[in-house]
Amino acid sequence: MVRQVLHIDCPDEKGLVYRITEVLYKHGLNIVSNQEFVDATTEHFVMRTAFEGAETPNGMLEDLEQALPAKANIRRAKIGDRSMIIMATKEAHCLGDLLLRYNYGEIPADIDAVISNHEELRSLTEAFDIPFHYVDHEGLERREHEEQIQKVIDQYQSDYIVLAKYMRIFTPEFVTRYQDRIINIHHSFLPAFVGANPYKQAFERGVKIIGATAHFVTDDLDEGPIIAQDVLPVNHSYTAEEMANAGRDVEKTILAKAVKLVLEERIFIHDNRTIVFE
Amino acid sequence: MVRQVLHIDCPDEKGLVYRITEVLYKHGLNIVSNQEFVDATTEHFVMRTAFEGAETPNGMLEDLEQALPAKANIRRAKIGDRSMIIMATKEAHCLGDLLLRYNYGEIPADIDAVISNHEELRSLTEAFDIPFHYVDHEGLERREHEEQIQKVIDQYQSDYIVLAKYMRIFTPEFVTRYQDRIINIHHSFLPAFVGANPYKQAFERGVKIIGATAHFVTDDLDEGPIIAQDVLPVNHSYTAEEMANAGRDVEKTILAKAVKLVLEERIFIHDNRTIVFE
Amino acid sequence: MVRQVLHIDCPDEKGLVYRITEVLYKHGLNIVSNQEFVDATTEHFVMRTAFEGAETPNGMLEDLEQALPAKANIRRAKIGDRSMIIMATKEAHCLGDLLLRYNYGEIPADIDAVISNHEELRSLTEAFDIPFHYVDHEGLERREHEEQIQKVIDQYQSDYIVLAKYMRIFTPEFVTRYQDRIINIHHSFLPAFVGANPYKQAFERGVKIIGATAHFVTDDLDEGPIIAQDVLPVNHSYTAEEMANAGRDVEKTILAKAVKLVLEERIFIHDNRTIVFE
Amino acid sequence: MVRQVLHIDCPDEKGLVYRITEVLYKHGLNIVSNQEFVDATTEHFVMRTAFEGAETPNGMLEDLEQALPAKANIRRAKIGDRSMIIMATKEAHCLGDLLLRYNYGEIPADIDAVISNHEELRSLTEAFDIPFHYVDHEGLERREHEEQIQKVIDQYQSDYIVLAKYMRIFTPEFVTRYQDRIINIHHSFLPAFVGANPYKQAFERGVKIIGATAHFVTDDLDEGPIIAQDVLPVNHSYTAEEMANAGRDVEKTILAKAVKLVLEERIFIHDNRTIVFE
Repeated sequence: MVRQVLHIDCPDEKGLVYRITEVLYKHGLNIVSNQEFVDATTEHFVMRTAFEGAETPNGMLEDLEQALPAKANIRRAKIGDRSMIIMATKEAHCLGDLLLRYNYGEIPADIDAVISNHEELRSLTEAFDIPFHYVDHEGLERREHEEQIQKVIDQYQSDYIVLAKYMRIFTPEFVTRYQDRIINIHHSFLPAFVGANPYKQAFERGVKIIGATAHFVTDDLDEGPIIAQDVLPVNHSYTAEEMANAGRDVEKTILAKAVKLVLEERIFIHDNRTIVFE
Repeated sequence: MVRQVLHIDCPDEKGLVYRITEVLYKHGLNIVSNQEFVDATTEHFVMRTAFEGAETPNGMLEDLEQALPAKANIRRAKIGDRSMIIMATKEAHCLGDLLLRYNYGEIPADIDAVISNHEELRSLTEAFDIPFHYVDHEGLERREHEEQIQKVIDQYQSDYIVLAKYMRIFTPEFVTRYQDRIINIHHSFLPAFVGANPYKQAFERGVKIIGATAHFVTDDLDEGPIIAQDVLPVNHSYTAEEMANAGRDVEKTILAKAVKLVLEERIFIHDNRTIVFE
Repeated sequence: MVRQVLHIDCPDEKGLVYRITEVLYKHGLNIVSNQEFVDATTEHFVMRTAFEGAETPNGMLEDLEQALPAKANIRRAKIGDRSMIIMATKEAHCLGDLLLRYNYGEIPADIDAVISNHEELRSLTEAFDIPFHYVDHEGLERREHEEQIQKVIDQYQSDYIVLAKYMRIFTPEFVTRYQDRIINIHHSFLPAFVGANPYKQAFERGVKIIGATAHFVTDDLDEGPIIAQDVLPVNHSYTAEEMANAGRDVEKTILAKAVKLVLEERIFIHDNRTIVFE
Repeated sequence: MVRQVLHIDCPDEKGLVYRITEVLYKHGLNIVSNQEFVDATTEHFVMRTAFEGAETPNGMLEDLEQALPAKANIRRAKIGDRSMIIMATKEAHCLGDLLLRYNYGEIPADIDAVISNHEELRSLTEAFDIPFHYVDHEGLERREHEEQIQKVIDQYQSDYIVLAKYMRIFTPEFVTRYQDRIINIHHSFLPAFVGANPYKQAFERGVKIIGATAHFVTDDLDEGPIIAQDVLPVNHSYTAEEMANAGRDVEKTILAKAVKLVLEERIFIHDNRTIVFE
């Protein structure tokens, strides 16, 4: 059974659901679920419709365009059609967990390849029969390094770039090029402990809960739209290192959750916040 | 701003959302939110629409009846119009928490009165200016006792009966009389530990998590549709009594949550399960 | 059964547990539980021993002083002997919850009185037969206002001051006067969203989890040692106001938890962090 | 830095901590942490001491035996010295997660091999360079099949047997042979939904929370001592299959946690319950 998703957003006005469902009904769509939401502060309307079928009915998208305000964004996607590339540095837990989920069929996308600025993760990646690209950053300007990375990404034409503990910061040029397509895992409960060494910061502040945040990457470091967050309790007996170890479970679980939400087209980005239809 | 809710459920068929939203649009409804769901196993459709306005537009309910299958249930409610009666035995935490929330404006209903088979909770109840009815069960048959309770409930014409740690079991006659209107808090994570003394059972089994379950009351003890559940971690150092003490926070929080879900018309009961639109 | 607690902390060295338990054994203490911890980063030792009995054995504290390093802090407390005063402004949920728990016997201390800079909470307080002191801040310098507050606190000789949503900031003089004795609830998951309006900040950042933090008050606003934290999930559908409403449950539960931890002598403060023996 | 653990349990009596720490002090042990607990219902004492050093001091265990009641169990283990064998059927998530954690150094034991009654998990296992033993059960009596399994286990002399979604039930003979050494993951929040198809049971009961339980295996199916449990929220929109998918994250995380707790010698089994020193 092929499943498709219709993704609509536009300024809110009366009758949008009626007009949209009228078009869908007339084209005989097998609707699995409808979810809609109006952000009261920005008066913005979003709607996600999942339907069955291999093809979008002829003329349906045109009819929707006709029925909706000129500013409407209408997107259609077939679940499973997307592809992604994973970037990581040395830590294995997030990358390994994604590869493992891919292996047991939980990731509705292709994993094209893994890119790393170190060699440590090659054997893990290749054990899952995924190409591994080592792109060394030594002796390169940041932009030079990124251009080599871009080459790999563009060769695969990957839809999404998943940063699975990739420990380098991108230039605005790189981020802009892949706008709304880069997903990062930050190892703290943002906005607490932005920047480097969040577990050290958490230890020093003596917090009783630590967390992780999956978010889209924007120009503002650690300030992009949040997709998903989770936490776990800690106590005085945890060193900063033990917090980091304990945090791995939350990091890998929440990154995988965010990746699946993105791939199932459950997310709308508006005004630096996300609307997530779970 | 008055808020109303439209509650519709019927066997699923194509075009229901379209037909419903067409009626709502034509009557110019100020829709705040729409939520719909189709239970795939029973092919049953439910939809909740919240809208603003003091009055339901003339003829709208009739138009909906026309537009929908003959078997559709259509219900309209004004949030805040309902009333409830609370029953409790001796423990103060659930009752006190409901009274407190009522006091700070969180319960969208009137609390008509408190009924108890003991006198312990009178002063707490009366401190919040709520009538307290002591209905002793000593020397009475179960049905005799219930008839006295019924008299109090019927005098107030309360819409809901909230059992806030009321420790007696009702007869099928009583339950049937107030079908889908009695909400109970069970002090375990159902279906684990049904019946009496769940914390003692939990202690003896050595569980690492305990919980509480708010549910509608049916003839089958502890088997009614579940509205909400929550849990908290425990460990070997908890005695059964300490589990019970720790469990109070979960009990009172989850009962209050369930009561609010019911009063905001967020729940559909179908096939002994609930659909909850949070 | 009277329960007492022995609270010991000192720089770590070998054999401390042996030396302490030797003294306790020789004085025939009925030990209920022992908990000890060495903070590896500061090499500081803490130990909490709970024991039964109305009296501390003659000479035991002196023997402990003898057996321990000169810098050791040795404190003994009888659970239930302490008293506290609650301060609040206008919101009822934290104050009401503490009064309610006190009412059903869960707070192991006396509540001497409630102080507020507004009149709103008088009737709730007096419903529980607790004295209510209205200390208006209008037209007063901050220190003048605090001096009036101090008079009330000192009249009762309260051991702890619990800020149950008291919305004013104290001067360093006030904080120093009651060092390690003022407990505050901050309505965010610190250190995220320090300062005013944390729920508005949380909404604008689009977080998926909100929280609350109970901490001791120090000179640095929202920077004192954290006692307990808890969180709850939110999503795009929550306005800032709805986040605040949802947050009330976490605020009141975690403040009550922190108060009980303090009153049961389960907390050590060292280096702006807490060691909490749950 | 080598870390060792001393594991002591015996009927409770006065002065045990003093007598034990006296022996440890006299042998100059570098104690990292001490944890003790007395089960009040059974009057049983347990104590775990972690210490540094490659060797146990000469004569220390003998001195402890002297100092303690005749019935005391005294066990010493070097963390990292243990080995385990994993058994699984067809599902990859628990097995894969353990292999992955082993790969990044989180499991303080050797994984000797994987045994399965199917071939599906061979390639995943071998990708991590772990031997895979296919032991088919077709056409064999239960005991015959188990004898073949025993041969593999005994060949490796594995200390623990981890059932990572192994879907067959063992005979009492097998369970007795490896008493307190078999760890299982059950895909429900025990004691709710014992037996087969817990997610189907959970769906039908309409629960709002599902869970997983890691426990030692005893003769009574799903009744062995619980090591760790965790839960996650679900709602009406989950089918039984979607509950199963969502449950995988909890299953794999809590099994890994239980395995680590066992390997770090943090667990005492007493009276079909566990004492877990986290």
